[in-house]
Amino acid sequence: MGKSKVLVVGGTGYIGRRIVKASLEQGHETYVLQRLDIGLETEKVQMLLSYKKLGAHLVEGSFSNHQSLVDAVKLVDVVICTMSGVHFRSHNLMLQLKLIEAIKDAGNVKRFLPSEFGMDPALMGHALEPGRVTFDDKMAIRKAIEDAKIPFTYISANCFAGYFAGNLSQMGTLFPPRDKVVLYGDGNVKVVYMDEDDVATYTIKTIDDPRTLNKTIYIRPPENILTQRELIEKWEKLIGKQLEKSTISEQDFLSSMKGLDLAGQVAVGHFYHIFFEGCLTNFELEDGEEASKLYPEVQYTRMDEFLKAYA
Amino acid sequence: MGKSKVLVVGGTGYIGRRIVKASLEQGHETYVLQRLDIGLETEKVQMLLSYKKLGAHLVEGSFSNHQSLVDAVKLVDVVICTMSGVHFRSHNLMLQLKLIEAIKDAGNVKRFLPSEFGMDPALMGHALEPGRVTFDDKMAIRKAIEDAKIPFTYISANCFAGYFAGNLSQMGTLFPPRDKVVLYGDGNVKVVYMDEDDVATYTIKTIDDPRTLNKTIYIRPPENILTQRELIEKWEKLIGKQLEKSTISEQDFLSSMKGLDLAGQVAVGHFYHIFFEGCLTNFELEDGEEASKLYPEVQYTRMDEFLKAYA
Repeated sequence: MGKSKVLVVGGTGYIGRRIVKASLEQGHETYVLQRLDIGLETEKVQMLLSYKKLGAHLVEGSFSNHQSLVDAVKLVDVVICTMSGVHFRSHNLMLQLKLIEAIKDAGNVKRFLPSEFGMDPALMGHALEPGRVTFDDKMAIRKAIEDAKIPFTYISANCFAGYFAGNLSQMGTLFPPRDKVVLYGDGNVKVVYMDEDDVATYTIKTIDDPRTLNKTIYIRPPENILTQRELIEKWEKLIGKQLEKSTISEQDFLSSMKGLDLAGQVAVGHFYHIFFEGCLTNFELEDGEEASKLYPEVQYTRMDEFLKAYA
Repeated sequence: MGKSKVLVVGGTGYIGRRIVKASLEQGHETYVLQRLDIGLETEKVQMLLSYKKLGAHLVEGSFSNHQSLVDAVKLVDVVICTMSGVHFRSHNLMLQLKLIEAIKDAGNVKRFLPSEFGMDPALMGHALEPGRVTFDDKMAIRKAIEDAKIPFTYISANCFAGYFAGNLSQMGTLFPPRDKVVLYGDGNVKVVYMDEDDVATYTIKTIDDPRTLNKTIYIRPPENILTQRELIEKWEKLIGKQLEKSTISEQDFLSSMKGLDLAGQVAVGHFYHIFFEGCLTNFELEDGEEASKLYPEVQYTRMDEFLKAYA
């Protein structure tokens, strides 16, 4: 049996572009959905053309044309959806229901990976409004997948480093501060920071692996389980300077939600669960659930290495 | 004398990203303005980090902080501004007045290249409303530069291939049709299509060249002077198929402006001047004004080569 063929839906997005490259790098015949309504979105068009140059196939399709999705899905064995569920970009998760309908009708798909790549939504039943919509939507998608008996893998990728580590977990910026930094509480809650390229590498590793069939896989490599304080120390070491630290209490942090727009409120909720509650690390993993154990050959990026790009 | 140091303002934009790379490739110490208000614009942040990795320096600055611009400008010899003046993206040309103020106060700049890179605005005094704002703004910027006696080069780069050739000059799409194509009039007006990477290469070639001081340089390499028909023929040859051709008259084309939004009206006006009037080629160039003659060592991309990415 050769390597499975892969269709990426959302291949020009933040994580999708890395999934496309990882799929090609790991030798999969790779298809990328090219939306018929892409219009004058220059960056996306040029990204698609660059994939083509790397050997990917572009497949025209539209979420308002069921047959076009069925036809695209029929070309491959594995479908990976990476449509954005991040409010400050766009929140399109429920569009995946149309993709699931197409996968059902096509009937040939051996594995579907829906757009997850964050916290495990199955563990977020208690999440705060309004940010819980992310988890509720992901759970609704999971239910549709499982009701349709579509083989799946769910990837819990924890904190994307570009969003959470490059800024030392500060909100509203993507660059690290050089003078002052705010700690969430005592800054000692364990979180998990992941280089996005590694998320893509691990994701593609799972797709032909019988061990990951119908399972949730957590990307939680031991050296990237860090507290916010430990992350800040790595940065301080890189720039040779101590930052001035202040702290925000749980109560003050939650109060900061007032007056923010929806995207801001969602973000505060998610940050709360990660940095105060410790939702990424307050549960044990069973054997066969953790990506770096399943694929020890992957040399994942440590955060001191990651932060060098910003120094 | 070593190679001049370069500051790119607008370095994450469509042409700016290519200018940054060309500047680095041609061995210039390269600085890129990093706007303080970049916030959560992930793509731009990651692009800036990628420049840093290639050896560029990021300089923080803001258009609402004059001193920050002066400080940035003082680091270099040459300033290149590539802020967008394309309505379907954003139209920021007049912000350049603030940059000109900073260049004036800094007093050290040997060459300034404002955001031009299209048709020569000095030849577009007769342009149609509302698209003429592009040329009027560029002329206002030129006047400010010349009043301040800032040494300059203006780059007239004609039609970016990604906007005008990849779509066989059809509007509203960036992909080439495979069945039907619309000709502007008889499709026999000569236009000039330029690979954007070549625009950047030629642009950087000019900055230390005494021959281009205080001049307008036209990028009009002979083999890229093509009619729309000739461009279509190249595509037909690539895909081994004749397209069904229809034609739109000058009058019908201009009438199509009605009911469009501003960006659409601007585009129709510009297309009219290019494809009906022939404004890119209806004047002769003097010696020393054409980039491919000044820099014959540059192997510019021909359009049959360019279109291969789409085939």
